[in-house]
Amino acid sequence: MLEQGAPVTENPYCIPSVFEKSVVRIPGGKQPFPTAAHLLTPLQDLHGIITPNGLHYIRDHGGTPAIDPDRHRLLVHGMVDRPLSLGMDDLMRFPSVSRMHFLECSGNTPLYKSGKPDWSVQMTHGILSCAEWTGVRLADVLAEAGVKPGAAWMLAEGADAAVLTRSIPMAKALDDAILAYAQNGERLRPEQGYPLRLFLPGYEGNTSVKWLRRLKLGDQPFETREETSKYSSLMPNGIARQFNFTMEVKSVITRPSPGHGPKQPGFCEITGLAWTGHGRIVRVEVSTDNGATWRDAELQEPVLSKCLTRFRLPWVRDGGPAMLQSRATDETGAVQPTRESLLAARGTNYYYHYNAITTWRMDPSGEMTLAL
Amino acid sequence: MLEQGAPVTENPYCIPSVFEKSVVRIPGGKQPFPTAAHLLTPLQDLHGIITPNGLHYIRDHGGTPAIDPDRHRLLVHGMVDRPLSLGMDDLMRFPSVSRMHFLECSGNTPLYKSGKPDWSVQMTHGILSCAEWTGVRLADVLAEAGVKPGAAWMLAEGADAAVLTRSIPMAKALDDAILAYAQNGERLRPEQGYPLRLFLPGYEGNTSVKWLRRLKLGDQPFETREETSKYSSLMPNGIARQFNFTMEVKSVITRPSPGHGPKQPGFCEITGLAWTGHGRIVRVEVSTDNGATWRDAELQEPVLSKCLTRFRLPWVRDGGPAMLQSRATDETGAVQPTRESLLAARGTNYYYHYNAITTWRMDPSGEMTLAL
Repeated sequence: MLEQGAPVTENPYCIPSVFEKSVVRIPGGKQPFPTAAHLLTPLQDLHGIITPNGLHYIRDHGGTPAIDPDRHRLLVHGMVDRPLSLGMDDLMRFPSVSRMHFLECSGNTPLYKSGKPDWSVQMTHGILSCAEWTGVRLADVLAEAGVKPGAAWMLAEGADAAVLTRSIPMAKALDDAILAYAQNGERLRPEQGYPLRLFLPGYEGNTSVKWLRRLKLGDQPFETREETSKYSSLMPNGIARQFNFTMEVKSVITRPSPGHGPKQPGFCEITGLAWTGHGRIVRVEVSTDNGATWRDAELQEPVLSKCLTRFRLPWVRDGGPAMLQSRATDETGAVQPTRESLLAARGTNYYYHYNAITTWRMDPSGEMTLAL
Repeated sequence: MLEQGAPVTENPYCIPSVFEKSVVRIPGGKQPFPTAAHLLTPLQDLHGIITPNGLHYIRDHGGTPAIDPDRHRLLVHGMVDRPLSLGMDDLMRFPSVSRMHFLECSGNTPLYKSGKPDWSVQMTHGILSCAEWTGVRLADVLAEAGVKPGAAWMLAEGADAAVLTRSIPMAKALDDAILAYAQNGERLRPEQGYPLRLFLPGYEGNTSVKWLRRLKLGDQPFETREETSKYSSLMPNGIARQFNFTMEVKSVITRPSPGHGPKQPGFCEITGLAWTGHGRIVRVEVSTDNGATWRDAELQEPVLSKCLTRFRLPWVRDGGPAMLQSRATDETGAVQPTRESLLAARGTNYYYHYNAITTWRMDPSGEMTLAL
């Protein structure tokens, strides 16, 4: 450089390079109305396990409300001894906790029926992100309210126009649930529920209700529209699975992947992400021959519970065609199923919680496509 | 909400809430010229251990260069068998590694001579941040070049207008040094060295040379201007300490802190950050009575090597005056010194590597100031 660079004194909050303009979230298909938000994280361009806040996926049903934190309150009522109405200052006086966790929409990887060969990993798996979440243990707030005997379910309600409501088992609410106000060090982004969201580690994303304004305790589920018309899944026997909360063991290769195949033969690192709502990932195997043979990938330390785990495997490509797959195992012993076994069990009227092995086809040229 | 929220389809990369406009970096005092960048991280408003990329501190001597990654090259030469000129595509084909590490400017906490009572923790400790860094192990690239016997030092040179140059011991280069291209999942921000920086875990920040364009191996240090006029420290005996790389054990309470004292008596969580360039933090003690008595704080898991460690301690304030301190111990057994003992050892002509215990004075009203 023969000249001074740009001064930064006018830049109190910096943004990515102009050369990284293509690394953005993209819409997940056409939505029924403009405020049905659906933006996917560019997993193919991410490194490590943290998703920067600007690229965290979004899914909501009524747009992003603009909430003044000084006017926002959380109501805790129903089967409690002392109903509470808490402002943000009240909530932030409670002891804080920070944990790194993934968040995945239950509709991530919409491949039960079919998929397009040119879908990138952003299209197939981009409703998935990971951050360090900070907030208050919900158990501490509920202890302050006093949970009445017999309370078994908790209604969580959002302050957005969609008034998203979900019934949460009290066992989860008293276990590791967080009332989250910060994400990767700073306060939540508006689209992530500013100023307050519920965060339920390992549960399907919609239960981590954003813009949280109300918690009501009861002795049975509240049977909201979001747990009948949505977020339930029709089994082959005609019966729907309801309250199917925990995201099961899953993984995907993020590089190389469609649109980002290797430009030349020779060394090519295979890397991707694995996760499970049941705790820790203990193993990720990678195949380059459509599952005929497998090799153990290296897991990035530390491997955290209910968090993305980055895996990596060195691979020397011989220049022939290849079929790349990853298969994760979690600490409960659950192994990621093949697409065939998942479809055999659930049929094609099922919609959510698709966690089968994904296959990327690689041509000799390095061009890659989704194989089903 | 009685109306739909804002649609997000026009927002591929999101930004913080308008209500968080005060959470920004601020200049660290008047600089000698406009492109001498010095922006401090708002530690008082951060949560957990991750610093979001928009708030990572900045220190450079010639502004932020605009570098096209497709034209950027890294030259590796000097005492090597095979000199290399590597483009970003070449570098990104090497096996990748991601690790969470703090970065601290050696000039952080400029309190050897004095400080102002109204300095916030952003002013006293804000040249400190933490991220998940991804890149290539420098050892792998040096193995490709072939290190000649006798090579003991490595010159690292930046492509900015200041052409920052530092001599790095080969032992460090071959240990845990990273050629970093990503930070918290996404590519480096321009101000953090886009497209490539050296990252030396635990070393003073300036050695993690940004906009890295050249590495030269030699048999002795290169004695650049940055290791004579700058980044050396005058001892009381008139001799300067040079090549004083590792940041020593340190901690600070970030909340409550000046400008952010408690508004009422009663429960008040004391929280802050601890770190050491020598490995892991094993203990943080907190005193509310100017060091007369100490209690062990809880350390946020996982505690990582050469990474920020968040500590927390529940405290019930009686409403009287208080003097808050934190004292960290690292895995080598090193304990953070008092200001008195640090000054006794180093005198007041010393400038860098101030790691003494910081004392915050709290009035009965909750108003807080820096005490020296």
